[in-house]
Amino acid sequence: MNKETLKKNLREIHDFPKQGILFYDVTTLFKNPECLQGIIDELYELYKDKGITKVVGIESRGFIFGAALAARLGAGFVTARKPGKLPAEVVEEVYQKEYGPDAIQIHKDAISTDDVVLLHDDLLATGGTMSAACRLVKLLGAHKMYVNFVIELTKLNGRKAFDKDTEITTLLPL
Amino acid sequence: MNKETLKKNLREIHDFPKQGILFYDVTTLFKNPECLQGIIDELYELYKDKGITKVVGIESRGFIFGAALAARLGAGFVTARKPGKLPAEVVEEVYQKEYGPDAIQIHKDAISTDDVVLLHDDLLATGGTMSAACRLVKLLGAHKMYVNFVIELTKLNGRKAFDKDTEITTLLPL
Repeated sequence: MNKETLKKNLREIHDFPKQGILFYDVTTLFKNPECLQGIIDELYELYKDKGITKVVGIESRGFIFGAALAARLGAGFVTARKPGKLPAEVVEEVYQKEYGPDAIQIHKDAISTDDVVLLHDDLLATGGTMSAACRLVKLLGAHKMYVNFVIELTKLNGRKAFDKDTEITTLLPL
Repeated sequence: MNKETLKKNLREIHDFPKQGILFYDVTTLFKNPECLQGIIDELYELYKDKGITKVVGIESRGFIFGAALAARLGAGFVTARKPGKLPAEVVEEVYQKEYGPDAIQIHKDAISTDDVVLLHDDLLATGGTMSAACRLVKLLGAHKMYVNFVIELTKLNGRKAFDKDTEITTLLPL
């Protein structure tokens, strides 16, 4: 999908969630059928030959393109969630956010050693949540792992949160 | 998709989120590629001729099958979320839950008067959140509205929370 079309359809909101923050509102991308389809098509082209067996979506905007892509790839879909949301046995990783520690969980039986996993979220900022999710997927022994974000805030240099050999794609660097 | 296959793949968890509650864990349905695909196929067959232009998913498990279905139908996808999550102007509906009031929001510009809307969530219990979301969709003037859940807890009689003329489908009554 054309980057200019994506950018034109992405809404910018000033001072959300607090003063001084420029928030990129991806809801305008999936509300638009052409953008929703275009993004899924582009992700499908990027990953169709990788043998992906599971797509992991990060709570909760990562569920949207993540689940649609899983269905398109014929893969299963797995959620990475905040503590207290997943009902069965989980693995958990604690990581630092701006104002203190946070944590992310995945069901222990959601990933197995023969899985080729694509982790997806809508936006790469500092990369804290996603890199924690990657450590969980590795801990569960996934055979191979890829990472994707629709948007990348390049100034925040979030790629440095990941191991050097992590294969990361983003559709729209800003 | 065969109801027995769905039921067999749905995990039951006792005493979650608290003592005495039997929780139906839908994560085992979308983790399984055949179930994910089978559910999307069945929803697509149910709604492909209705002219759906927007699918509304209820935060946050409703995003999963909801977004995949929107992509399949060529519709846009809209999120109905808890207060504080949506960055632009919203409409809000307050409703009663077991232990007090709760609220749900939709972006004001997410639905327009020519939209045919399918609202989707994973599970129908008392119907409080979904019926509040329906009132918001009606308030925004949608041309026509349908409601779907994957699972229905029939003993809780959640259908009584909706206007009589609401067209509700569920795939797996339990």
